[in-house]
Amino acid sequence: MKDAHIRFETATDKVATRITKMRPSAVRMLFAAATRPDIISLAGGMPDVSLLPKTAVRKAARAAIDAQAITLQYGGTNGLLETAQVFCDIVRDVGIRHKPENVIITTGAQEALDLIAKTFCDPGDIIITEGPTYLGALQAFSAYEPEVHTIGFDEEGMRMDLLEAELERIGKGNPRLKFCYTIPNFQNPGGVTMSPDRRKRLIELSHEYDFIIVEDDPYGRLRYEGGHCLPMRALDESVIYLGTISKMFAAGLRVGWIMAPPGVTAKINLAKQGTDLCGSMFDQKMAAAYFTETAWQHTLQKFIKTYDKRRRAMMDALEEFFPPEATWTHPEGGFFVWVTLPAYVDANSMLAEALDHGVIYTPGDSFYPDGKAGRNCMRLNFSYPSPEDIREAIRRLAEVIEDRLELYRAFIKAGAISE
Amino acid sequence: MKDAHIRFETATDKVATRITKMRPSAVRMLFAAATRPDIISLAGGMPDVSLLPKTAVRKAARAAIDAQAITLQYGGTNGLLETAQVFCDIVRDVGIRHKPENVIITTGAQEALDLIAKTFCDPGDIIITEGPTYLGALQAFSAYEPEVHTIGFDEEGMRMDLLEAELERIGKGNPRLKFCYTIPNFQNPGGVTMSPDRRKRLIELSHEYDFIIVEDDPYGRLRYEGGHCLPMRALDESVIYLGTISKMFAAGLRVGWIMAPPGVTAKINLAKQGTDLCGSMFDQKMAAAYFTETAWQHTLQKFIKTYDKRRRAMMDALEEFFPPEATWTHPEGGFFVWVTLPAYVDANSMLAEALDHGVIYTPGDSFYPDGKAGRNCMRLNFSYPSPEDIREAIRRLAEVIEDRLELYRAFIKAGAISE
Repeated sequence: MKDAHIRFETATDKVATRITKMRPSAVRMLFAAATRPDIISLAGGMPDVSLLPKTAVRKAARAAIDAQAITLQYGGTNGLLETAQVFCDIVRDVGIRHKPENVIITTGAQEALDLIAKTFCDPGDIIITEGPTYLGALQAFSAYEPEVHTIGFDEEGMRMDLLEAELERIGKGNPRLKFCYTIPNFQNPGGVTMSPDRRKRLIELSHEYDFIIVEDDPYGRLRYEGGHCLPMRALDESVIYLGTISKMFAAGLRVGWIMAPPGVTAKINLAKQGTDLCGSMFDQKMAAAYFTETAWQHTLQKFIKTYDKRRRAMMDALEEFFPPEATWTHPEGGFFVWVTLPAYVDANSMLAEALDHGVIYTPGDSFYPDGKAGRNCMRLNFSYPSPEDIREAIRRLAEVIEDRLELYRAFIKAGAISE
Repeated sequence: MKDAHIRFETATDKVATRITKMRPSAVRMLFAAATRPDIISLAGGMPDVSLLPKTAVRKAARAAIDAQAITLQYGGTNGLLETAQVFCDIVRDVGIRHKPENVIITTGAQEALDLIAKTFCDPGDIIITEGPTYLGALQAFSAYEPEVHTIGFDEEGMRMDLLEAELERIGKGNPRLKFCYTIPNFQNPGGVTMSPDRRKRLIELSHEYDFIIVEDDPYGRLRYEGGHCLPMRALDESVIYLGTISKMFAAGLRVGWIMAPPGVTAKINLAKQGTDLCGSMFDQKMAAAYFTETAWQHTLQKFIKTYDKRRRAMMDALEEFFPPEATWTHPEGGFFVWVTLPAYVDANSMLAEALDHGVIYTPGDSFYPDGKAGRNCMRLNFSYPSPEDIREAIRRLAEVIEDRLELYRAFIKAGAISE
C-alpha cells in the first residue's frame, strides 16, 4: 500500500459541509497549552467533584454492580424507567409533573441538544437563542446547519422587546422557525436569570408565533440567594425541559434527560436509536441510586455553600480590582459571571497577555454563533477555583485590563479613537 | 395556557426531513409486545453478560471509584488516554499498530457510526455497505441523508465482482463517494467472513476509486473455528477501524472506539464535541481496569465456548428441522445466522404467525436501506438463548415455515405462482 500516506490527506478532503464550518478556536488550543501550575483558570465550567462524599459514590456504584444483569447489558433507547422515575420525582419539587414514559435519558444534556436539533432542524431552519449562549449548544446545533438568531439579555434574562421585534421579522407561521433555546436560570455564560414575567411572556409568544421552547436547566438547583422561579415547563406542558446530573452529582457519568410531550418523545427516540442506541445503563443505575439511597440533598447544600463562597470572592474581587470602565452581571446562582469591557477592548487577543500574567478566561465571542459579537466580553467561572485563587486571578486579570485601558485612554485623549 | 394541548400535536409537525424518513418498524413494535415468557427470541443481538465473573466487574468498578477526581468529572472529547492505550494494546494482537492519541473513544460503536456519517456525509453522498447490513448503521447513516448502495455477499463476504461493477457505475473520482462500511468478521446479519483475498482487493479498490474503508469489528474476537484473518487496518493505515467492548466485556457501559489517521481524528473530534462533549469517564476507566486488572482472556474463552455450543445447537437444529427449500450461512464466529427462504415467502408477514408459535426472529428487510430487499430472509441470533431453547425455537420456526411452504407448494402445483 505505497500510497497509504497520500490517503491520509485525501480523507480529510471528504468531510461534509457541516464540518468545514466547525473550527477549533484558537482559544481552545491556548487552553490546552495552559498547563503551567501557576496559571489560575477562570475559563472552565467544571463542578467541584471533590465535594462528593466517597461513601455516596461507593453506594451508587454498588447498586449498579449488584444489578449486573441490567447494567452491563444493552438497554432501551429511552433509558432505565427506574431512573426516569427518579428524575420525575426530583423535578416535582420545582413544580414539574411529568411521566417517566415520556422521559428520554441522554448521554449528558449535551446529547439532548444534539438530538433536539437532529429531530427538528433542516438546513436553514431558524433557532432563537440568547446571545451570548452556551457554546456547546451552538456546536450541537451547527451540525444541522440552522440559522441561529440571538437575542440579548439584561439582568432579568432574555429581553422580550428584542425577541418580539425579531419574531416580527421572522413572521407569524414561518415554517422555518423551530424552537427557542433558553437557559432561564443562571444562564451560561451570562449568569442572569429570566424573571417570572418574562417566562410567562415567552410562553405566550411561543403560542402566538408557533415555536417550541427548549428550556435547559443545568444549574437550577444551585441558587445561592433569592427565591426559586417556576420553570416554564411547570407552566406549560408543551415546553421541552432538559436536565442533567452533571452539577448535582457527577459530570463524568454523562447522564442527562429530556422531558417532552409524548409525540415529541417518540420522534427524539427515533433520532437517538441511530446516535448511540442507548446510554450507559451502569451510569443510569448509579444516578438512580444516588438520588434515592444517599443524602444527596445534604451534599447539594455543601455544593451550594462552597460555590456561594467562591461567587462572593469573585464579586468582591471584581469590585475591588476591576476598572470603572468594566461592568459585570450579578448571578444569584450557577457557575458564571459575564464581564463587559469597553467596545475597543478585544478580549480574544488579550488572552495571550492574560496567560502571561497567570490567568485565563473564556473570551466572549465564543458564545455567539458567528463569533463576531462579544469580542469585548469575557466569561469568568467561579465554581472550581478556591476563593483565594479567585481573588488572585481577578487581581491579575485587572492588571492586564488596566494595561489595555491605559493604552486606549492615551489614544482617546489624543483623539485617535472615539470612546 | 389553554392551547397547550394543541401544541402537543403541532410540535411533531416541525420535525426535520431526516426524521420523517425514519420509521419505527412494525417488527420493533411486535417485539415490544412479545414479553410472554413462553416466547423464545432469536431476534435480539445480546451478549450473555451472566458469563462475566462478578469479581471482575467489582474490580473494574473499584478502579473507577478510586479515581473519582477523574471519573466523576468532565473529560476530554477523545476520552481517557489511559483507556485508549489499553485498546491499542488489545488490537496489537490482531496486527494493528495505532497510537492512543489517534483514538476517539465513543459512546458504544454506535456513536462511532453516527460520528463518521456526521463527519463525511452531505445529503446525497454515497455510502457503500454490504446488503444486508447492520440495521443500526443504516439508522445512524440515514440521519445525514446519504444514498446507500448495497453489495451482496456470499460465504467469503462482500462480492468484489458486484462491488467493482457498482464502482464503475459510480465512476472514478466521484466526489459524492465517501466510504464503504463493512463488517468483515462474522457479519451482522450475514454471519459471513470476508476472505483475505477480498480484503486485499477492497483496499486496492479504495485507492483506485478514492473512498474510505470503515471496518467495523465488534465480533472479531468471537471466533469459534478457523484461523483469524488480518483486519484491513493491519494492512493499510488509511482504514478507519471501529471496535467496542460490548461483546468482550459489557454492552451496558457504552464504550467503543474509532482508530483513524490523525487528520480524520481531528475532524471527528469536532463532530463529537457537539454530540456529547465526552463519553462516560467512569465507564472508560472501568474498561481500562477490566482489560488490565482482570483475567479477561480467560473470560473471553468462556464466552467463546458458550457461544460456540449455541451456534452448534442452531446449526444442528437447522439441519434437522428446516425444509430443503431453505438455505443458511455457516458462521465461524459472532452472533448470527442468515436464512434465505424461497422468494415467495414473506418473512415479515410470517412473523405474527411465528409469535403465535412462541418464537421470534428479525425479518430480513430490516437490514436493507429501503426495506425492499430481503423479504424472504431472516436473521437468527444464537448468542443469547440456551442450546435447548435454540433447538426448540428452530423446531417451532420450522413448523411455521412448513405451513407457509405447503400453501405455496399447492399454489405452485396448481400453476398459480411460479417457483
